[in-house]
Amino acid sequence: MKKLVNDVHQVVEQALQGFGGVYSDLVTVHTNPAYIIRAHAKDQGKVAIVSGGGSGHEPLHAGYVGKGMLDAAVPGAVFSSPTPDPIAQAALAVERGAGVLFIVKNYTGDVLNFETAAELVQMDDIDVATVTVNDDVAVEDSLYTAGRRGVAGTVLVEKIAGAAAERGDDLHTVTRIAQHVIDNVRSMGLALGPCTVPHAGRPSFELGDNEIELGIGIHGEPGYRRGQMETADTLTEELYEKVRFELALEADESVIALVNGMGGTPLSELYIVYRHVAELLQRDGIKLARSLVGDYVTSLEMPGVSVTLLRADNDIVELFDAPVCTPAWK
Amino acid sequence: MKKLVNDVHQVVEQALQGFGGVYSDLVTVHTNPAYIIRAHAKDQGKVAIVSGGGSGHEPLHAGYVGKGMLDAAVPGAVFSSPTPDPIAQAALAVERGAGVLFIVKNYTGDVLNFETAAELVQMDDIDVATVTVNDDVAVEDSLYTAGRRGVAGTVLVEKIAGAAAERGDDLHTVTRIAQHVIDNVRSMGLALGPCTVPHAGRPSFELGDNEIELGIGIHGEPGYRRGQMETADTLTEELYEKVRFELALEADESVIALVNGMGGTPLSELYIVYRHVAELLQRDGIKLARSLVGDYVTSLEMPGVSVTLLRADNDIVELFDAPVCTPAWK
Repeated sequence: MKKLVNDVHQVVEQALQGFGGVYSDLVTVHTNPAYIIRAHAKDQGKVAIVSGGGSGHEPLHAGYVGKGMLDAAVPGAVFSSPTPDPIAQAALAVERGAGVLFIVKNYTGDVLNFETAAELVQMDDIDVATVTVNDDVAVEDSLYTAGRRGVAGTVLVEKIAGAAAERGDDLHTVTRIAQHVIDNVRSMGLALGPCTVPHAGRPSFELGDNEIELGIGIHGEPGYRRGQMETADTLTEELYEKVRFELALEADESVIALVNGMGGTPLSELYIVYRHVAELLQRDGIKLARSLVGDYVTSLEMPGVSVTLLRADNDIVELFDAPVCTPAWK
Repeated sequence: MKKLVNDVHQVVEQALQGFGGVYSDLVTVHTNPAYIIRAHAKDQGKVAIVSGGGSGHEPLHAGYVGKGMLDAAVPGAVFSSPTPDPIAQAALAVERGAGVLFIVKNYTGDVLNFETAAELVQMDDIDVATVTVNDDVAVEDSLYTAGRRGVAGTVLVEKIAGAAAERGDDLHTVTRIAQHVIDNVRSMGLALGPCTVPHAGRPSFELGDNEIELGIGIHGEPGYRRGQMETADTLTEELYEKVRFELALEADESVIALVNGMGGTPLSELYIVYRHVAELLQRDGIKLARSLVGDYVTSLEMPGVSVTLLRADNDIVELFDAPVCTPAWK
């Protein structure tokens, strides 16, 4: 295994130390236990937004801590859920008298640990609401999941809920908006190759010279089929069609599109995929309201891409456009 | 070869179409010939900044077109220089009566083609100045270069010269500042593995299971030694020491540090490298004025990292901090 690490058991801690140093104007990093909060706290009376999950998906979640998005992020070990204690500590550190919303990706460990953390926080008479992101249409149930997995659509939930909290919406409203985004966002990805978890020391799966995995999970979980490499346009259409079908998108609707790199894909290839997503939307008469292309939710160095579509009304677009200042989204 | 492309001869064109679609509010993309200009032109009487070079280093250069940085970027084929005509056309499209500065990375093809382009533009009685970035301390002369290569330091030259032009400095002054940055910026990188140029179809070089290349070029050109994989801290120190020595940095001086990912390196590993750069600077009594960590100048999907240090006085830091609004630097 060739990785720029010192000790496989200190990857998250040392990466957080570096991250905290680069962005000390935006975030404050606690390493024991590990959680990241905004350097400049939100005003009293505003809802706090807390997310988290296994590390290895950077910039998710710590890169989205800052004004207009998350108040705190709680990283676990690589591809492992954070435990309840740091989640609860992070929530207590950022709550401002208006309650806390947990944004959780749908993996069994995350769901359970955020649930326990919510109980701990509620003991202090603080309101906690939780939403669970399950945007991945590739498979029902999976290696670590009952139901659909939460993947790249999470970043849109965090952005839009964060903007709603920033403008002063109450906990009930922020939660309703976050759930509305979850109900209207779907994603699917593919991998051209595996990634290597540092403490495992070997690739998470194997693919043949010309083989790809359709419907890959962000931890390298199996998708719905393996196939031969095809052109970017052919593969893009397969991702797009499944997502569009599951969202039941129709002509004249508007969407926000996210073409997400999984860590080892050149930006030029993401633009080639995006180009065809835009063509397909145009073919189907669906309006492309806003776009994002880049590495937003990664799987370490995995070469691959996912396509996310979010059905977007005017309020969603307004919240998407609202000012944001975080390490990874400015 | 597994790549998300349609036709290896249309990679640059299709990627630019996607890029232009995502960032239509910031840039205007011309595809035949290929050049990218700001969507909102600079005011009359301000110096125009034009850069360019082979594609495959995204977000360089097109991602840095916008207010406060480049007025135009001219992409060649992957790892190949753009020809003089599109360079001249881009310059004529963005000049505003105050002359044009060409920022060129030191590769023989780029240097010659920008030289010819300068002659073409000067025929229209437009002042053209050129600076040549040669920050890579790994090797003297190289596969495509006489003298040192231009690598990740280029992005700092573009940011700082762009800010000087935006505040209204004249061509002589902007050129002097750009040259001052070039004289005070040095970089070195290493690769854990190769990248694959789409039209070549196979990896640019081979490394053993535990082997790395120190001093790698951004086109996979050989460095100064191959060695076994070591810890992140050991490798970081080797990069840092060579850069610090070549800059003759001494205690109490200030630097801007850039830890650059080459495309296939997880963000967490870049933070681990950055963490140790910061520790080494502190050990040596050198002040870390500003930091950047991320994929700024890539080599397609190459796994690797480079360390860049720029000796920074107050004017340089002020220009570094000046507002910027481009696809890749906001």
